[in-house]
Amino acid sequence: MPVGTVGTVKAVHTRELVEDVQAQIILGNTYHLYLRPGLAVLEQAGGLHGFNGWPGPILTDSGGYQVYSLSDRRKITEAGAMFQSHLDGSRHLFTPEKVMDIQRTIGADIVMAFDECPPYPCEYGYAQKSMEMTHRWLARCCERFDSTEPKYGHSQTLFPIVQGGTYPDLRVQSAEAIAAFGREGNAIGGLSVGEPADKMYATTELVCGILPADKPRYLMGVGTPVNLLECIALGIDMFDCIMPTRNGRHGMLFTSQGTINIKNERWKADFSPIDPEIGGYVSTFYHRAYLRHLFLSGEILGLQIASLHNLSFYLWLVGQAREHILAGDFYEWKNKMVGQLAQRL
Amino acid sequence: MPVGTVGTVKAVHTRELVEDVQAQIILGNTYHLYLRPGLAVLEQAGGLHGFNGWPGPILTDSGGYQVYSLSDRRKITEAGAMFQSHLDGSRHLFTPEKVMDIQRTIGADIVMAFDECPPYPCEYGYAQKSMEMTHRWLARCCERFDSTEPKYGHSQTLFPIVQGGTYPDLRVQSAEAIAAFGREGNAIGGLSVGEPADKMYATTELVCGILPADKPRYLMGVGTPVNLLECIALGIDMFDCIMPTRNGRHGMLFTSQGTINIKNERWKADFSPIDPEIGGYVSTFYHRAYLRHLFLSGEILGLQIASLHNLSFYLWLVGQAREHILAGDFYEWKNKMVGQLAQRL
Repeated sequence: MPVGTVGTVKAVHTRELVEDVQAQIILGNTYHLYLRPGLAVLEQAGGLHGFNGWPGPILTDSGGYQVYSLSDRRKITEAGAMFQSHLDGSRHLFTPEKVMDIQRTIGADIVMAFDECPPYPCEYGYAQKSMEMTHRWLARCCERFDSTEPKYGHSQTLFPIVQGGTYPDLRVQSAEAIAAFGREGNAIGGLSVGEPADKMYATTELVCGILPADKPRYLMGVGTPVNLLECIALGIDMFDCIMPTRNGRHGMLFTSQGTINIKNERWKADFSPIDPEIGGYVSTFYHRAYLRHLFLSGEILGLQIASLHNLSFYLWLVGQAREHILAGDFYEWKNKMVGQLAQRL
Repeated sequence: MPVGTVGTVKAVHTRELVEDVQAQIILGNTYHLYLRPGLAVLEQAGGLHGFNGWPGPILTDSGGYQVYSLSDRRKITEAGAMFQSHLDGSRHLFTPEKVMDIQRTIGADIVMAFDECPPYPCEYGYAQKSMEMTHRWLARCCERFDSTEPKYGHSQTLFPIVQGGTYPDLRVQSAEAIAAFGREGNAIGGLSVGEPADKMYATTELVCGILPADKPRYLMGVGTPVNLLECIALGIDMFDCIMPTRNGRHGMLFTSQGTINIKNERWKADFSPIDPEIGGYVSTFYHRAYLRHLFLSGEILGLQIASLHNLSFYLWLVGQAREHILAGDFYEWKNKMVGQLAQRL
């Protein structure tokens, strides 16, 4: 899922998301959209779909990630999280119930439970208490969600989130508790927050062994192209990550042959396309020397090309993964690709 | 002509220039391209066409405008202008001959003569001496241009530039001198540098009465939508201006009903398209409330939408002008439009 925090996938037109990236779903962020443009405007627009014109499904982060990323601007209690707006300092209490109501108004197709995403590292005692509160919050989310209706004539569904830090026993406990809620899909949160990759993989494997295989498993906030392939191998079906757009804006390109720092001197007179392998307009039309020139000149078009290419690459990669799964040669292909993608060109 | 100073029309993909804006020609800048990416890279790429992939004609500013805009970084002598690079402080002598050679290497379809663009206001004596030097430089440009060949297998042509400040007798003298060179097209420089609109119109009218009507007349650096219509009425065929893109990046939209400051509160919940009248993706797909949100959130997509819309509007406007000229009702239409376009919504 390309990330569109405030209702826009940065530097990418909606038409490009549909036609070039061929995204099937995008992500928005409850906390950010609640602050700006605000619920009144979103409701008048017919929800986020009406506001930004994206024709496909939308999943919204619940604000649980901001509990982590804005840790100096929030206070957590059993009731919920009190945030101080990063825009104007105003205070806003996010409770599980309120977060469900907000996502009803945003009109997200997939609504995420309100959780606490603890940091890494995190003491066992804190991780346990936090996880238990996340479970209690989930019960409140489900109650509110199940007793309210969609506002715009299309259905919405609620995904719960497994927490428990990097402690295997807590993760098992959480995965079992979350699976027992029997929702239509399940998410794994609290990873990709600074822990080593092997802990992320181990935790993902452990949790995937418990979450039902016949429902989508969503690994939140992950990751590099290699992370995606490894986690697909472990049973993950859905990802979101800002890397393709954020790293793109810093001149880092993901390609089928490895990563490129487009600002390097080495691309100065390289008139080969960004990545002919993956096809599509942006990856085959512009050459590397031109893109380098745009970055060195501080031109907006450079950010646009890099963002659009990286997203196209990510969607190409998971599309390839899907094909190889269906063809039955996923592991062989994955192991070859992991070596290739980890290269720096 | 959309302006692509360093080889990119800011915030607009090449594909969008072709398909959405439907630009027939774009502009590049000799001084900027010479400094970055530099002639070695441009030559290896097959010129600017090969470098940025733009499939249509390109006109290049000669650097004469930088003689004006970078006046604290250059020294003018009969030989040419010594520039100190705005990038690294290095010194570069631009002579008429060198500027022709550079534009041969850039591969511009229309090469502009190297001139001095004097400021406004400008004393009579200075304007006269400057104009006379511009005429001598033009003779040197023609000699060099006519004794050299295109580098990439397509033809190039050289347009001379009328100067003379806002002094009618100098403008007459310059227009007659320039017309006598008998090139394929002629330009009017030294306007849109701070003089009142009535002086710009009066000068344009005077000069258009002298420059041959059967060759394109190009008014450099102009202007607002109203300026364009008024100057078309006076006989101008070609324009370039950064207004559609620069003003767009500041949230100012040109529409068929007048100008919009998209940051205004008034658009907060306005879900009507930017300008349904002109048609096309960007002007009909995104609504004003969303575009306002993008600007208030500092999102790149806002810059993209505003730039693409404004360029589409400019090209729509001159397309309409062309149709009304052919239909024989241009003045009536122009007078109606001028009132409409001058409104602030």
